[in-house]
Amino acid sequence: MPPRKTRQSTTTDESASKSERTRARILDAAAEVLSRKGYAGMRLTDVAQVAEIQAPAIYYYFDSREDLIEEVMWSGIADMRKHMTAVLDDLPDGTEPMDRILVAVETHLRHELEISAYTTASIRNSGQVPENIRKRQVTEENRYGRIWRDLIRSAHAEGAIRTDLDLYITQMLILGALNWAAEWWNPRRGSVEKVVTTTQNFVRSALAP
Amino acid sequence: MPPRKTRQSTTTDESASKSERTRARILDAAAEVLSRKGYAGMRLTDVAQVAEIQAPAIYYYFDSREDLIEEVMWSGIADMRKHMTAVLDDLPDGTEPMDRILVAVETHLRHELEISAYTTASIRNSGQVPENIRKRQVTEENRYGRIWRDLIRSAHAEGAIRTDLDLYITQMLILGALNWAAEWWNPRRGSVEKVVTTTQNFVRSALAP
Repeated sequence: MPPRKTRQSTTTDESASKSERTRARILDAAAEVLSRKGYAGMRLTDVAQVAEIQAPAIYYYFDSREDLIEEVMWSGIADMRKHMTAVLDDLPDGTEPMDRILVAVETHLRHELEISAYTTASIRNSGQVPENIRKRQVTEENRYGRIWRDLIRSAHAEGAIRTDLDLYITQMLILGALNWAAEWWNPRRGSVEKVVTTTQNFVRSALAP
Repeated sequence: MPPRKTRQSTTTDESASKSERTRARILDAAAEVLSRKGYAGMRLTDVAQVAEIQAPAIYYYFDSREDLIEEVMWSGIADMRKHMTAVLDDLPDGTEPMDRILVAVETHLRHELEISAYTTASIRNSGQVPENIRKRQVTEENRYGRIWRDLIRSAHAEGAIRTDLDLYITQMLILGALNWAAEWWNPRRGSVEKVVTTTQNFVRSALAP
């Protein structure tokens, strides 16, 4: 298993209050423990230890263990969606649909490997947490999936996708290839750059007519 | 979540003894419960209920809960490797390397969706079971990975792979796309045929120069 990096953005942001930074540290720690121990095995004492706080302090930020787990399962994908939306919105008007897809590939991979504990927690616990905890995550996943669906449909409408591909299956193959990287990528084995470049080349030639 | 099919081969094989069939039914049930409840949450009473036997009977076939879990984590991938090896060995001499890869894509997908509870159990619990339980699984995963490595290297040696792809990363992208199907594929949404065809077209064009 590659060492998991945790999300840096909030915890090191100078402008975030101490309270916000502690909350983010608890979430990072919970994502890490949840990906290793699973829903049934995650103990708050382990989370507190990783976050370097006293266990009861968790209740200052989260109402319950379930509440904390719900936030982890939801916030990784919500973060990804917000980030992706901002990046795509910033692209110049008239950017070719295939270029938009390749930007999305890079954005997903870099963000995923940055917050990989959230991605693995979400992959490994997707069928294990109770339905009520998963609800917000499923909603977010669907919203995120729609971004990819629209990217692929737009490219298809402009004739930039091979006609022998089912569009929904293609979307899931790309997302599978991307999500799996959190499970196998090891910074000691090669740079993120190399992963991004090969994945972009792979996806471009897979899709282009 | 798509309904999980369980492995049919052993449980319905007429020649298998009643004892062998019961053992296979316990394994199928354990894979199903393990994928839903996770390592820490899997109870033998749940396994017994799904397998439609009395819980203590499990100990007739497996020494311990850990023993049963180890077998689930290991046997799905071992099954896949044996099946894949047999299929590839049966191909006529002189089969083009790209055709071998496309046969492997189909073989992996069909077998995975057939024994999908084992695949999801293994995906979701890969970082959650203790190291001693994972040992045999990791060994099998490496052996299985080498089949794909060799397929891709052979194709590369014959000039059948684009030169802008890193071969190891390419292997992991393909395996990610394939493995993820157990998480999203829903028989109500479309046939396995359609998944196989699109995935073969996707992989062929991703790799071909």
